Amino acid sequence: MTEQVKTKMIGGQSMLFWDPPWIAAAASVVGKKEGEGPLGSFFDAISEDPMFGGRSWEDAESRMVKAAAELAIGKAGLLKEQVRYLVGGDLLGQLIATSFGVEALSIPTFGVYGACSTMGESLGLASALIDGGFADVALAVTSSHFAGAEKQFRFPLAYGNQRPLAASWTVTGSGAVLLKKERTGLNSQTVQEGEYGVRVTGMTPGRIVDFGVKDSMNMGACMAPAACDTIAANLRDLKEEPSYYDRIITGDLGYVGQEILLDLLKEKGYDIKKQHLDCGILIYDREVQDTHSGGSGCGCSAVTLAGYILRQLKQGKWKRVLFVPTGALLSTVSFNEGCPVPGIAHAVMLEAG
Amino acid sequence: MTEQVKTKMIGGQSMLFWDPPWIAAAASVVGKKEGEGPLGSFFDAISEDPMFGGRSWEDAESRMVKAAAELAIGKAGLLKEQVRYLVGGDLLGQLIATSFGVEALSIPTFGVYGACSTMGESLGLASALIDGGFADVALAVTSSHFAGAEKQFRFPLAYGNQRPLAASWTVTGSGAVLLKKERTGLNSQTVQEGEYGVRVTGMTPGRIVDFGVKDSMNMGACMAPAACDTIAANLRDLKEEPSYYDRIITGDLGYVGQEILLDLLKEKGYDIKKQHLDCGILIYDREVQDTHSGGSGCGCSAVTLAGYILRQLKQGKWKRVLFVPTGALLSTVSFNEGCPVPGIAHAVMLEAG
Repeated sequence: MTEQVKTKMIGGQSMLFWDPPWIAAAASVVGKKEGEGPLGSFFDAISEDPMFGGRSWEDAESRMVKAAAELAIGKAGLLKEQVRYLVGGDLLGQLIATSFGVEALSIPTFGVYGACSTMGESLGLASALIDGGFADVALAVTSSHFAGAEKQFRFPLAYGNQRPLAASWTVTGSGAVLLKKERTGLNSQTVQEGEYGVRVTGMTPGRIVDFGVKDSMNMGACMAPAACDTIAANLRDLKEEPSYYDRIITGDLGYVGQEILLDLLKEKGYDIKKQHLDCGILIYDREVQDTHSGGSGCGCSAVTLAGYILRQLKQGKWKRVLFVPTGALLSTVSFNEGCPVPGIAHAVMLEAG
Repeated sequence: MTEQVKTKMIGGQSMLFWDPPWIAAAASVVGKKEGEGPLGSFFDAISEDPMFGGRSWEDAESRMVKAAAELAIGKAGLLKEQVRYLVGGDLLGQLIATSFGVEALSIPTFGVYGACSTMGESLGLASALIDGGFADVALAVTSSHFAGAEKQFRFPLAYGNQRPLAASWTVTGSGAVLLKKERTGLNSQTVQEGEYGVRVTGMTPGRIVDFGVKDSMNMGACMAPAACDTIAANLRDLKEEPSYYDRIITGDLGYVGQEILLDLLKEKGYDIKKQHLDCGILIYDREVQDTHSGGSGCGCSAVTLAGYILRQLKQGKWKRVLFVPTGALLSTVSFNEGCPVPGIAHAVMLEAG
């Protein structure tokens, strides 16, 4: 057993999977604004109704979660009874979007919270549960809703406050990723000719990094140091250079956070400029959509992964991706009490094969 | 590998560990009221100051979390740098008690939320990470604070509202459990003569169970159906009778919830009356301490486990315990919007050996 531990525990902080789980399906459900953005054509479902047929913003988000989860299970040709565990979370206090969204599925559920890094945490833990032999099928699902998040963290929409340029726009969307122990294609029962299956090969769980930034309207600056810490840990643990990955994709640093991340990593001797993308930058058209620093929220990295990133891997355009959702660990209570906003980032290693 | 999966996945919902992790240390830090209760002598630290030297209720809770975590690490004779992963959470929105409490430890952290069931979720996931080969040392820590929870979920303390008899009293306390891959005694480097080591042998993660109960002042009734679902799943998956365990210990059902649980399980053909204990009932003296239905909160099951339950196992008074923290999945938003209060319960199998 000692040998097993030595091989799965890599460096100071990372885990490598022996029998990397396969991504059997991924689903994305988004709002109108996300559907109009540059990635619009990649999403499975775009709702014209911001309420998604629900009776409150929270209910709307729960409905997105349920739709994304059911769509992913269906795409994999499975029944919900065949999903052994669900790992998921959202931004709302006490994870109500997730719990009310998934309760009807009746799948044993691990609720997790890593702010906007939650898809990294969910996907990594679900993969570890499969690689560890505890599950054959597991589902990772996260979400956010612009209106619910504004209500939770900032101002009521009706207040119509001005937004500083460093602020990001919370993505309305839910992404679900279904993992299987057995080899499978993405969104098809088998790996098709000329396409690749996608596996989760490892994870670097993040530490909480606190640079003392107190501006909740500048999440990018709060999260960039955490992204730097986790990406550097991953490369150090693996003894690899940034070029090991075709892309290193952070969650929602936005334009402001991206610049800080590139600078901080350079100080550590890593230049990831060629590899770096950010879901928050990818998802909106900055000029046309008036989204300032970019998109954010648990849904931002989740739908970009489910809709866009996994497709690039499936089509062989990228071979290896380090997916690094980033989270800002604040609540209105901590913020109003004058606490800083620490960040966390969880990195998940994806590989086409 | 197929054989491995078949053995670690038990029945429909449970996981059994092949090489069950050992509990190397456990620590409990509580408030004055808990120190005055029947379990007072079992706790490591009792603070006369409800603020724990902090400047807000949230800060107070973070200080408890940090103290409990550091104490557990110290008892195991380890440095924080030797703890590979931390799994933990609390009741406050966006888990601020945990994140501000553990950030100085700089341990890669998985934030989890299962309301008051969070210690079951944390302990189970930390154990799975070790048994899966992803960590050699992991820490599970959860907390709650009476004043912080009242502020979060009910009324400001200064309001002085009356509490119905079915209401529970949120425990001020934080419990931390340090897990190791290698055989070890509890709170001593080796298993002492005449004592036992304690292992985590498996877990049954819970499903979300919603009976439509809407009374946030009667958590016991909201959580009992979930406890029943998880306990029945554990016994069914293991093909065992309740007598397989010396004790089946729920988290914080209290007097009201206990009665409902015993009735519901009887309907399923399981009589656990002889085995059942509840941390919420154990922790306070109902008559003297005016705590109505009993204690509750993420800290309730955590400190009862760390202080009392593990000691009984170590001393050989009990051989096998099913530890089943129970959570009520509500927020003030969901409650005020008229949503019901679903429950969840995560069961962790403990064994002296």
